[in-house]
Parts: sequence; C-alpha cells; structure tokens
Amino acid sequence: MVSYSVDLSNAKGKIMASNTFGNIFRITTWGESHGKAIGVVIDGVPAGVPITVERIISHLKWRRPGQALTSPRKEPDEPIIESGVFDGYTTGAPISIIIRNKDAKKTHYDDIKHIMRPGHANFTYINKYSVFDHHGGGRASARETACRVAAGAIAEAILEPMNIRVAAYVSSAGSITMPDSNLPADIKIDTITQSPVFCPDPTTSERISDHIQTIAQQGDSVGGTVNFLIQGCPAGLGDPIYHKLEALLAYAMLSIPASKGFEIGSGFNASTLTGSQHNDSWHSNDQQQIEQTSNNCGGILGGISTGAPIYGKVAFKPTSSIKKSQQTIDTSGNNTTLTFAKHTRHDPCVAIRAVAVVKAMCLITLADAYLSNKTAKV
Amino acid sequence: MVSYSVDLSNAKGKIMASNTFGNIFRITTWGESHGKAIGVVIDGVPAGVPITVERIISHLKWRRPGQALTSPRKEPDEPIIESGVFDGYTTGAPISIIIRNKDAKKTHYDDIKHIMRPGHANFTYINKYSVFDHHGGGRASARETACRVAAGAIAEAILEPMNIRVAAYVSSAGSITMPDSNLPADIKIDTITQSPVFCPDPTTSERISDHIQTIAQQGDSVGGTVNFLIQGCPAGLGDPIYHKLEALLAYAMLSIPASKGFEIGSGFNASTLTGSQHNDSWHSNDQQQIEQTSNNCGGILGGISTGAPIYGKVAFKPTSSIKKSQQTIDTSGNNTTLTFAKHTRHDPCVAIRAVAVVKAMCLITLADAYLSNKTAKV
Amino acid sequence: MVSYSVDLSNAKGKIMASNTFGNIFRITTWGESHGKAIGVVIDGVPAGVPITVERIISHLKWRRPGQALTSPRKEPDEPIIESGVFDGYTTGAPISIIIRNKDAKKTHYDDIKHIMRPGHANFTYINKYSVFDHHGGGRASARETACRVAAGAIAEAILEPMNIRVAAYVSSAGSITMPDSNLPADIKIDTITQSPVFCPDPTTSERISDHIQTIAQQGDSVGGTVNFLIQGCPAGLGDPIYHKLEALLAYAMLSIPASKGFEIGSGFNASTLTGSQHNDSWHSNDQQQIEQTSNNCGGILGGISTGAPIYGKVAFKPTSSIKKSQQTIDTSGNNTTLTFAKHTRHDPCVAIRAVAVVKAMCLITLADAYLSNKTAKV
Amino acid sequence: MVSYSVDLSNAKGKIMASNTFGNIFRITTWGESHGKAIGVVIDGVPAGVPITVERIISHLKWRRPGQALTSPRKEPDEPIIESGVFDGYTTGAPISIIIRNKDAKKTHYDDIKHIMRPGHANFTYINKYSVFDHHGGGRASARETACRVAAGAIAEAILEPMNIRVAAYVSSAGSITMPDSNLPADIKIDTITQSPVFCPDPTTSERISDHIQTIAQQGDSVGGTVNFLIQGCPAGLGDPIYHKLEALLAYAMLSIPASKGFEIGSGFNASTLTGSQHNDSWHSNDQQQIEQTSNNCGGILGGISTGAPIYGKVAFKPTSSIKKSQQTIDTSGNNTTLTFAKHTRHDPCVAIRAVAVVKAMCLITLADAYLSNKTAKV
Repeated sequence: MVSYSVDLSNAKGKIMASNTFGNIFRITTWGESHGKAIGVVIDGVPAGVPITVERIISHLKWRRPGQALTSPRKEPDEPIIESGVFDGYTTGAPISIIIRNKDAKKTHYDDIKHIMRPGHANFTYINKYSVFDHHGGGRASARETACRVAAGAIAEAILEPMNIRVAAYVSSAGSITMPDSNLPADIKIDTITQSPVFCPDPTTSERISDHIQTIAQQGDSVGGTVNFLIQGCPAGLGDPIYHKLEALLAYAMLSIPASKGFEIGSGFNASTLTGSQHNDSWHSNDQQQIEQTSNNCGGILGGISTGAPIYGKVAFKPTSSIKKSQQTIDTSGNNTTLTFAKHTRHDPCVAIRAVAVVKAMCLITLADAYLSNKTAKV
Repeated sequence: MVSYSVDLSNAKGKIMASNTFGNIFRITTWGESHGKAIGVVIDGVPAGVPITVERIISHLKWRRPGQALTSPRKEPDEPIIESGVFDGYTTGAPISIIIRNKDAKKTHYDDIKHIMRPGHANFTYINKYSVFDHHGGGRASARETACRVAAGAIAEAILEPMNIRVAAYVSSAGSITMPDSNLPADIKIDTITQSPVFCPDPTTSERISDHIQTIAQQGDSVGGTVNFLIQGCPAGLGDPIYHKLEALLAYAMLSIPASKGFEIGSGFNASTLTGSQHNDSWHSNDQQQIEQTSNNCGGILGGISTGAPIYGKVAFKPTSSIKKSQQTIDTSGNNTTLTFAKHTRHDPCVAIRAVAVVKAMCLITLADAYLSNKTAKV
Repeated sequence: MVSYSVDLSNAKGKIMASNTFGNIFRITTWGESHGKAIGVVIDGVPAGVPITVERIISHLKWRRPGQALTSPRKEPDEPIIESGVFDGYTTGAPISIIIRNKDAKKTHYDDIKHIMRPGHANFTYINKYSVFDHHGGGRASARETACRVAAGAIAEAILEPMNIRVAAYVSSAGSITMPDSNLPADIKIDTITQSPVFCPDPTTSERISDHIQTIAQQGDSVGGTVNFLIQGCPAGLGDPIYHKLEALLAYAMLSIPASKGFEIGSGFNASTLTGSQHNDSWHSNDQQQIEQTSNNCGGILGGISTGAPIYGKVAFKPTSSIKKSQQTIDTSGNNTTLTFAKHTRHDPCVAIRAVAVVKAMCLITLADAYLSNKTAKV
Repeated sequence: MVSYSVDLSNAKGKIMASNTFGNIFRITTWGESHGKAIGVVIDGVPAGVPITVERIISHLKWRRPGQALTSPRKEPDEPIIESGVFDGYTTGAPISIIIRNKDAKKTHYDDIKHIMRPGHANFTYINKYSVFDHHGGGRASARETACRVAAGAIAEAILEPMNIRVAAYVSSAGSITMPDSNLPADIKIDTITQSPVFCPDPTTSERISDHIQTIAQQGDSVGGTVNFLIQGCPAGLGDPIYHKLEALLAYAMLSIPASKGFEIGSGFNASTLTGSQHNDSWHSNDQQQIEQTSNNCGGILGGISTGAPIYGKVAFKPTSSIKKSQQTIDTSGNNTTLTFAKHTRHDPCVAIRAVAVVKAMCLITLADAYLSNKTAKV
C-alpha cells in the first residue's frame, strides 16, 4: 500500500518544453489528438536527399488506426509536406509535415472529463498543468507518434544509400512469446508485413492474433514486446560516455507512450552470465572479414557500433484504457467509478502499432548518429 | 554466425563530443583512467546550497575500488572542490571537482596494446578514432563514473531539503536473485550499507558474496542487476513527449558502462499482463490522501511523476576483462590469444560498484527534472 | 581588391540545421518565401497564458508587406493557431502557427535563376547546398521573419503580466538621423505607430519618408537603424559569462536578415569615453528607490539586467535587390549583368519592416531569459 | 533621470548556468578570479590534432596581466593540460586545461565588500544570487577570459591545416583612431605584435600608448575598439536563419566583459549607404577566380561565408574600476562613496588585453562552424 498527498495548487503554469528529439537530425512535434492537426518539423536534413510523400505514407500505414486488432478510429493519415523539399529533393531547409485529424470525436470524452483514469497521464497532466485536454488525451495521446513515424521515413531516406536497414516486429503479447534467437540476423521483412500482428513467426503470429481478439472481447487489453534489428550499420556510429548509441536508443524507446523496459543485445539475460560466456570472440576469416559466433553485445561496445547487427527489445504495458469498470477518484479527490462508453475506441494491444514507432525511433536515432559521426577528419 | 568488414582507413579524426549530461543541472566530465586526474564541472547549481567535501567523499566511498570483491586498484578518491563554493555554500557558479589518479599502473597494459579485447570498447575506439589510450582503457574505463558519483553528491544536496531520497542496491548476481517485491517501498538504507555486496536481503547478500568469490577464483566475472528506489518525489517532475522522466532515467542508466537493460516499474513483466491487472487504482482515504494498492507504473505516468515511489532496475553484463584466455584478433586483423597478466586488476562483478553510479545518475536526473520544473508559473 | 577561388564540387549535401532559437522559450521556424506556407512551432510556453489570434495579427501588421514605402507584395498574413491553445489559454504544449503564402509569384524570378545576385545569399547558398530555391529567395527571404513576429506576440503575452514592455523604432535612414538621446526612457508608442516609417520624431519621420520615396524612384535602396527600448524589466534577468543578456540580444539581432551592427547602451560611443564619464552612479532617494542620472550601461551589467531601461540599436544595410543594373557572374562563373524585371517587388528600406522583427526578437529573448530565471530558489 | 526599485528578497538561489559556449566545438569554463584556479574543458575536438602547451602559452601571453599599460597583477598563466592529449595529439576526448591563480590578493577587496561599484557586475550579482565573491570580482572578473584564450589555441590547431588565420588588433582608444580601411586585407601580424598596445599602425600605436599613460596617471580609464580579420576562410561556413556566422560572432563578442557594440563588414556605416553603393560586385578573372573591388558584406552573405576575408569591430567601454572617488550606494541601499585603495590593480584600457580574447572567440566560433559544416554529404 502506498499513500501520498498531492498539492494541486502548485500546478498552474508549468511548461511542456520537451517536444524536440535529436542533436543534428532534430525533430519537433506538435498537435493534439483531437485538435485540428498534428505535425512535425524536421531540421538537420542534408540537401539532396530524394523524398516522396509515398515513402512517408508507406511508413504511416504500419501504425494507422482502423486496422484489424487496433483502434477502430478511422484516420487516413495523409501527410502534407509543407516545406524543405524542392523538385523531389531536400534543400537542407527544415521539412514541415502536417497530418490533418479527420476522425476526431470530441464529445466521446465529455462524460469522463473529471475522472482520473487509472494508468493514464491525465492524473499527472492535471497535477502539473492544471489544464488537461481531455479530448482523446490531447498531447498525451499516442497520436503524436504518427509524427515520429513520418520523421522516421525522412531518416530512412538518409540512411538508405549506406544500406543501413531497420526492422521492428512483435515478439510477444501477454505470455505468448516467439521462439528466442540470440542473434536475430535472419528476420525477413516479408514475414513481418504478412502478419496481421507484425510477428514474423507464423505460428506465434496466429496465437497472438487469437489471444488479442479474446482479450478485446473481454473489454480488456494486453501488453507485449517489440524487437528491433538494425542491419548494415558500419562500425563507428555512436559516442562514448553520455551519447552512447545504446543510451540514445534507450532514451528514444522509453519516450514512446506505454513503454516500460529496454534491452540491448543480451539485455537482462546478460546479468545471469559469466564473462567467459558473454564475451563475443572475434575471428578473422580468409576473406579478411571479421567473424563472430555470438553477438551478445548487440552490435555496440563502449557506446559505439561494431559493424555487427544491432538488436534489442522494448516492453509495452497493456493499454490503460479498457472497457471494464475501474475504481478511481475524480479531479476533486472523491472516490468514483470509471466506465468508458461502448463506442470509445482503443487499442487492445498497443505493441502492434508500436512496431512502426519503434522502427521510426531507431531510424531517427541512427540518422542522428550517422550525421554526428560526419563531424570529423580535420 | 555474423561476418562483416571494418574499414580502419575511415577512422582517424572523429570526435568524442558527448561528455555532458543534463539540461539545467549539467555535468561535464573529463580525464583518463591512467592519466593525471579525472574531473567534473557541474553547471546549473543554484546559489545557496550547502556543500561539504565530506558529502562527496561519502558518495565516492561506495564505488571506490580496493574494497572486498572489487578491483584491487587502490584509489583514495580524494575530491578537490576547485570552484563554485564560497564559505560552504554554492554561489551559482560552476563547481569544478578534481580527483587525482594515485594508483595508475601504465605498464600493466603494454603487452596487450595491440590486441582487440573481446567485449571491450578498444575495438570500437580504434575503429572510430585510430588512437586508443590502452592504459587502463583511457576514457572508456569505468573510472569516469567516479565523476558522476561526485556530481550526484551535489545533486543530493539540492534535493535534500525537499526530502527526495534515492537508494540503489544489488538485486541479483548471476542467477542468484533477491526475493522480488512489486512495490519495494520499504527498503532500509542500513540494510544496504551493511552488506558487502550492497544487497539489502541478508540471505541473498551472503549467497552473492560467496558466488562472486568463487567466480573470481576461476578468473572469471559475473553479471548482476541493480535496483533503484526514489522516495519523496512530488508529483509533477518530468515532461511529456521526449523528456519523459522514465526516458531520461533510461538514457542515464544505459550511459553507465556495462549496462544492458532498463526497467521502470513493472518493466518487462508489464508485457505479460492485462490492463485490468496492470492499472493502479487510486483511492482517496479519510485523510484526503491518495492510496494505491499497487504501483505497477513505477511512480510515473505519461512521463511525469505521480507522487508515489519511483523504482526500476538496471542490468549489467559481466566484466569483459577476465583472466581466462580468449581467442581474438589484433589491431592488424590477425588471429591471436588474449591472456591478461596475473597482476591485472578488474572487478569480478561490476554491479557492486555500479550501485553508487546508478544512485548518482538517479540523483542527477532528478535534480535536473526538479530545476526544470521550476521554470514555471508566470 | 579581393580575389579568391570557390569550389562548388564540395557543396552538395550540407545541412541548414539552425532553425531553432532560444533555450527554454524556443521557436522553430520553417517554410519558403514562395512555397505553400511558412510556420513556427513555439515550445516552452507555460500553461495558462491567454492567447488570441488578434494579438498575433496586431504584431504581424507592423511588418506586413504591401504598405506605403515597403514591398508591394500583398500578403494578408493570416496566422492560424494549429495547436497548444485550448479555450483561449495555453496548455503548456507546443503552439504551432501557420501562415499561408497568398501572393507568391514564382515566375517573377525565372530569368535570374542562374545569376549570382550581388549582396544576396543565393551566392553562398549555392556554394553550400548546390540547390537554391530562387523563387523569392526561398528560405533566405525575409519572409521567414513573419514567423518570428508571430512568436514575439506569444512572448509578449508571457511578459505582459510583469509589465515588461518593448518598443522598437526607426532612428535613421541613410544619413537622416533622429536627434540623439542617451537615455531614451520617454519614447511613446503612439508616436511610433503614427509615423509611416515608424520613427517617433515627427520631423525626422517626414524627412525619412521623403528620402525613401526619392531613393525608390531611382530604383535604389537605402540602409537604416532601428532602436529598441525595454521598460519594466526587473533586475536579475540574463546570466553571467556566455548567456549575458546583451550577448543573447546581439545574437538575436544579427540573426535578422540585412543586419550589420549592434549596440547596447552607450555602444560604440563608450569606446571614446573615460571611466569617470561612463560609469553610471547610483543614488538612493527618499522613497528607497534607486536613481541614476545616466544609463550608459543600457540597463545591463555583467550580463544581468539592473532594473533600469534596456536600450540599444541595430544597423541594417540597404536592400541588396535594386532595379539598377549590376555587374556580376552567373552560377557557371561567367561575367554577366543583373537587371531585375520592373514588376519585381522589394523594400526600398528594410529597416521599416525590421522594426517589428527587432521588437519580436527582443520579446523572445526576454521571455526566454525570464523563464530561465525562474529555475531557482531551491 | 531613471528611478526604479529593486527587491533583494527575490534574489537567493538563482543559477549561473551559462558557462558553456559552442555547439560541436564546445568549451565550459570554471573558476573565480581570486580562487585556487581557473579552467576550461574543451569537448568536440577531433582525434589526431597536434597540441603543445607552448601553443597555449603563446596565446595566453597576449592577454596576460603584468605587462606595460595593463593591470600590474603578476600571473604567469601556466596552463596544465590534464586530459585529452596523448603523445602530443588529441584523442577525441575532452581536453581539460587548468591555470592556477598565483597572485590573488584577497584582502585588497575587503573594505569595499559592501559597496555597489558603479559600472560593475557586483550590483547585479547581488541582486540575482544574494552572494557575491567580492575578491577580485569572482566569476565576474575578466580573469575568466584566460580560459577562452587557452581554448582558442586548441581551435587554432584545428583550423591551421586549412590555412584559416585570425588576427585581432586595437583600432582605437578614446578618440584616437587608426586610419580606416574598408577592406583590411593587408594587416600584417608583425605590425600588431610589435606594438605595445597591439595597434598595427605605428603612429596611432604611439599616440594610444601616450594617451593611456596620461589617463592612468589621472586614476581614470578609457574605452577602445578591437578589430578582427579572418583570412583563408572557405565559402560555406555558417548557417542560415539563427546560426548565421555573423550572429554567432556577435554573440561571442558581446559575451566578452566590457563589450558594448559589434559590427560585421561595413557595420553601422552600411545604414548610411544606398544599395548601389553597398552591394559588392563579383567579377570573374582570367584565372577563374572571383574578384571583388569592395567587401562591404564583410565576407558573409545570408549567414554563410563567401570565401572573402571576414572582418569586423568590437567596442569596449572604459574599465569601470577607477581610482577616482565615485558616488554610489552600499548593499543596504545607503548613499556612500567608493574609493579604491592605491594598491588596487586594474587595466587603464581593457581593449588591449581584449585583443587576445577577441581573437580567441573568433577562433572558437570558426572551429565550431567548421566542424558543424562537416556534418554533410550523405
């Protein structure tokens, strides 16, 4: 049992000044879930990168609501490039992308305006800012992540000529887990896209689909894990000390709504091993290439990429918005019950749509590390 | 099996520009493991905070080498405050702290100068910078973390008047794990300090001590986990979107050498639960206090502290430097064997000394979030 | 005579990553002069500040083209608030403001596409980025400053409750200069707005108007100076060392297109005086107020505001785009002649429209310093 | 007459968090004038740059007190490189340089501890921080600039291989001014070093020397101007919008203590000219080089270097500390008289020692712009 007091009188007037991510490749997002639009300004893009709206759309498609097993909200997610691209190529100037909200249903949330939603940010927003845009969660909504995905598409266009490729996929939902692989170098992108839950293992995919449907019918939600895999990354990306590549990835992943944990390479399993088990040995082969039989380090040593594949895992909690009734308090501190209306629209498992976001945050982090690494060779 | 090529000709001249951590409360560290000294400049400290050298020493004592079950290197770790403190109080000016290296043994490393050390950063440093200070690992050494601990002591002095308290402790080493607790609100600081391995559970502490000694005698090392617990943190610290408090903590923790994973609150376990299991319900009691029977969110919702205790876990891999012989390559790409000299000094389990560093990074992150949160109320 | 070589082959791919200004109150601008729209995202605004579109419009009116003595381009400059304001008050979330371009005339610039324009940024943009959006100057156009003015209106709303007031005005054009005043504490805002050239001295205003008309008829342009005056600023804003208030103001002012010089307080005249002439003496009067008979320091000492009025001056060069023929080179390095078409639209004296921009940059810099100064009192 | 109230009760606890300058090449300075030492940490230096202590000493020599016509304080200014340099070359790690204070005379300032010094920062420091280290001005002292000069030497070592050269010199003191030159491309470094007041024009140098001696004998001080000239800078350095090269230079220069104004190229004179007079025409000569007969833009257009020499001017006020008696108030608000003791040591004209600082800030700004510009060419 935890008990504590909260002083709402101290709240009014705080700042939400953390809408920018990245150092050289830098994104700034804006917009509320049920406002007029959401958008992102991407600064630090070199001139001469080919950009099409189609590339952005293809990324947004992965996280769009309204698909099987995700929120029934219908958002076409049509990105508009407002600046920074000229004749199909970047000019070096900031790229502004806007996505209009088409299916905002403001009134859906009116009856829960004054209720603290268990597991939800409205409790802390009201504590910090006094005001909370209760329409779909305002800025706290996962809708903001569409902007990250759009920015990830721009990052991908920067990384593509170097043949750096990023994949993300669902590896578990609830207690249903994909057979593990210490060195997941052979995930095929097709096996991910063919799965309705973005899980590359067909058997696991089917079991997860069934499980989520059952959970959804119960008016409940379930957690899950998303893996990422970066192939083709050259040695030398990332920096020692505070901008370690794994630190930047952890920062990126834990900034995604609902994420609760992060692993790079062997992750928590590393804590159970000995040095002689965990160290990856290098071997030089006949073609002067470096070979490793294990990749426990996950492609990063001392914060810097080794040249081997980079991989890791992100844990997502179950969506806090569920249809079951829950005991809670209202904004005046009175005990009450929260029951969402039947038509309210939520994801039964956020991990599915998080796949596109995890991928985007990898791409953004890598593009930033790649461009930072260019500041060199005097 | 992973195979890849590395092009050393691209290396020379890169920058290591990531020696600063924090936004308002900002630390910049410098110095090499076996150089003349290491140091930290702490900017953003408000005027009027009482600071003593004794407080800094008491923090450094926790991570000092030369204790039982840690590296036998003898470093007194005497911090010198060179600026920013006047008559026992901060002036608002930057605080410069220097720690002279007393027990550097440069020649210890000469015979392995040209060998890529499995699991070690010298591989990536040579790839990125061409040069590598092989004496004790130079900048890549965990010696840098002494500066973080010194800075953590300053952060603690800022947080103390608000009664914000941070504890860190070893929760496992190898497969030996402390009995779990979903809501670790009752850890007593005494039970941590009385354990030679900083584990508050006496039985587990003894088993871990025995295990590490066995591992050390085998010339091997072992991984472990470190938990952190923040009590007394008011609601409202942290920001939405990219400066989420858990994202900043994840960034801080993954910047610690040898860390491989991070959890906040329920962590990876959250991915196995349903929303109705995971959501923490609020209840208002007779004293107008908020009560929770669970704290799965770990004291943070939407990136902002709730007022409940904040807790999480960090995974550390086994020390890469072990006395057993290992197959590897040299800097010219030839296959070779690495065998450390008998007198080389390394930690059999880095998690023990990491306790002080995890605590320091929590303190620094919280002090920064606390001061950032003051920019408010127009 | 200066001669030098330029290597265009090194150009392609550079980054324009400097579209953000400020530390806590932070603006990010985007958009091209003749693109679809321009915009600004303002982060770091505290929750609870009252904002109306009317306030933003009233600021934009000052710099709008299409007025007497300015460019005949007709832009209504209708700002749209896309996010961050809820029921008339800021929520703490980023404010996105978009201004659609209505009178872009892309074809106007086609015939000078390959000509290096003397005194213009297309020379350096082509050198740095290879590409240049020649339509009205793209990102290099002063049109970007409309976004600064919109952001300045938000900054003003933050400062208003503290009674901090900013005025800016034209103090000279060509060799016609307003009678000097060492301590311009008594400028009335009405005398500025009533002047078509924003000059508060009626006689000088008329002479400047006549002069600019003459210059414009000759197809030429003329430089000018803009003064700023900040009243009601409390002591304590600004920081020592690198974030000195005067340094941040100088940075802000020299980032305005066409600015060539900056003075704070006594400015260049200070270099001709002795210490006994220049030092401002403090005197305590009967009402426990501080009195000064001079304010040579310009309201700032050691980078921090004193409480006295802050004032300074910014020099603007004559608009580089003139209708007279000019000798120059084309993008292939051949000598040629630049003659703008008769219908091309430019300002005969940029200082007039710069008044709104100087004021906006003062407001933004002060709001940032004000919010930074709140990070205090542990 | 200006009158205003100051509320000291609001002061305690503010932060001085602005001790870092630069984006990629980043310096952080620390230390008080009469404390144990001052120092600088330089981050962002590429690996492989040759560094010697002698180079740093040669720069410090220019600003050292204890020379003719400067403060008689005797400081040998012996820089110690504590980290980041290995076998004579940078490793990419942060470079820590410390300079011990040898001639601090703390008691000199005891009798003026409670007096507000006209024109001095102790007034604003006390207002902001409550505490003020009155010993020689603490952090507000120009002694901090020695750290900038040391960092400038590192920046020079980065720029030297590109043949980018920076000169700075005194162009006026009081009303004695060097004959002007619109295009000062031919300043010889020898003519500067041979002048005791760092003025390259022998006649002006002698007149300035005589004038300063007269002023000093009167117990007074005098202002002056310092010019800078950057030769060999390639086209493409600097960025559009907010990181304009002239904006960064203005920011750098106005952060130097006692500076009151900044000009780039034609500066304030630009405001008096027409476009046809001010525009610099380009001409292509037989050797495919670009020729200009004027350089009014000062080598920068649209924030980006053109390839022509970059030049400008900085105004310095007379030293506020003079031996003449001055009317003022004490820290309790009572009217009083300030009379420095005879043995107090101050510069009669800060512009002389500012020459080294202006040069250093140019070098630092350019090294940063140079390294930033490398982040390119995908």
